[in-house]
Amino acid sequence: MTLTKPPTERGRRTWEKIVVAAAELFRSGGVRATSIEDVLVRSGCGKSQLYHHFSGKADLVTAVLEYQLDRFLAGQKPFLDELDSWPGIRRWLDELPSEFSDAPDVIAACPIGALAAELAGTDEQVRQALAEAFDRWTGHLAAGLTAMRDRGELTAEADPVRLARMTIATLQGGLLLARTYRDADLVHSTLEAAYAGLRSHARGQGPSSAEEPSSTAALRGDGLGDRADVGEPGAER
Amino acid sequence: MTLTKPPTERGRRTWEKIVVAAAELFRSGGVRATSIEDVLVRSGCGKSQLYHHFSGKADLVTAVLEYQLDRFLAGQKPFLDELDSWPGIRRWLDELPSEFSDAPDVIAACPIGALAAELAGTDEQVRQALAEAFDRWTGHLAAGLTAMRDRGELTAEADPVRLARMTIATLQGGLLLARTYRDADLVHSTLEAAYAGLRSHARGQGPSSAEEPSSTAALRGDGLGDRADVGEPGAER
Repeated sequence: MTLTKPPTERGRRTWEKIVVAAAELFRSGGVRATSIEDVLVRSGCGKSQLYHHFSGKADLVTAVLEYQLDRFLAGQKPFLDELDSWPGIRRWLDELPSEFSDAPDVIAACPIGALAAELAGTDEQVRQALAEAFDRWTGHLAAGLTAMRDRGELTAEADPVRLARMTIATLQGGLLLARTYRDADLVHSTLEAAYAGLRSHARGQGPSSAEEPSSTAALRGDGLGDRADVGEPGAER
Repeated sequence: MTLTKPPTERGRRTWEKIVVAAAELFRSGGVRATSIEDVLVRSGCGKSQLYHHFSGKADLVTAVLEYQLDRFLAGQKPFLDELDSWPGIRRWLDELPSEFSDAPDVIAACPIGALAAELAGTDEQVRQALAEAFDRWTGHLAAGLTAMRDRGELTAEADPVRLARMTIATLQGGLLLARTYRDADLVHSTLEAAYAGLRSHARGQGPSSAEEPSSTAALRGDGLGDRADVGEPGAER
């Protein structure tokens, strides 16, 4: 669901004041602990103004998601346009942690991830808005991976959408543990794993790699055979 | 910090009633939205009983973390004892998603991860308790990876503690996106990446793999060279 933004300049200013106030409050205290009244006080807007634009809290969460993702993706644009090659993906993964950290031990929560952690299990409208926000984000990588698969650089079985979601998932988990340990390097470690996971679907690097089953299938097998231990020369995993 | 549990059977029963009540409330409504009064009402315990065992909410969070992790690790025990081999690690990663899902599209939040998402940035005592909880969890894999490194199955540069934290981070991120998309398979996809990330530090599988730099160093380099594209036959990545 995409919210329609106000057509007038004045309406847009009010809209933005409310969304920025809600974003700050959601971030500092969580969504559940933030009331509509809190948003009114912080934004300096009236109740009728707020309800003119938003039917309630779920709408506000959706608007905050869109607003934050718009800004994030605008800043990432140069990287997002080059996700159709291994060096482009690597440059993006190298750059991503700096979006969330100004200092070695200070890691900001991902605003999208924080909302998902609090709300993905509660409200169906919000869950769908969260999935759409992640789709907008992962869509750039999925498009790049699709182009790579079409050029034969990924195995035919590789699922670009799933791989892109996996990559953002590892980022989210990396940020969570990095905040807990105050160790920004953990974001790099998890993104390294994401890159290795993507590379395990690469094709055409070695003589036998085109015949490799997807490693998803291998991992989800009976768990007894461990193909990766066979150590076939030239096989990418 | 480990809390000392009550010495008497009666004290332990009270302690457990309070911790179980707090765990349920934290899980359903979040920690910030749960008051001590709420815990008293739900547990049926009195204020003096609660403050006899816990100095406040941070203590309660610590106790809930320990309690939940005790139960989780006890159930995982057969897997945790065999994390010193690739097949053992794979079996554990294959099994983990089922701990959080009873049905294809229902994914429970990780109780430890949910507390971390809400609290890692707020309270220092709680942050440390969270890091200690993750340490207890990741310690099993770190011990297994250390044994593997000592046997020469991992490169000498591989950092078992960091790799173990990375693995639990990917689990957390996978659970978060799987809940958002109602798609349990995303947990498998992210754990597949974790496994690929661990395997990228494997040693002794091919003739040249012992000379490979760690892929962390490669990923964190200038981002221009892409060693993994070279496709050296027999090199594990």
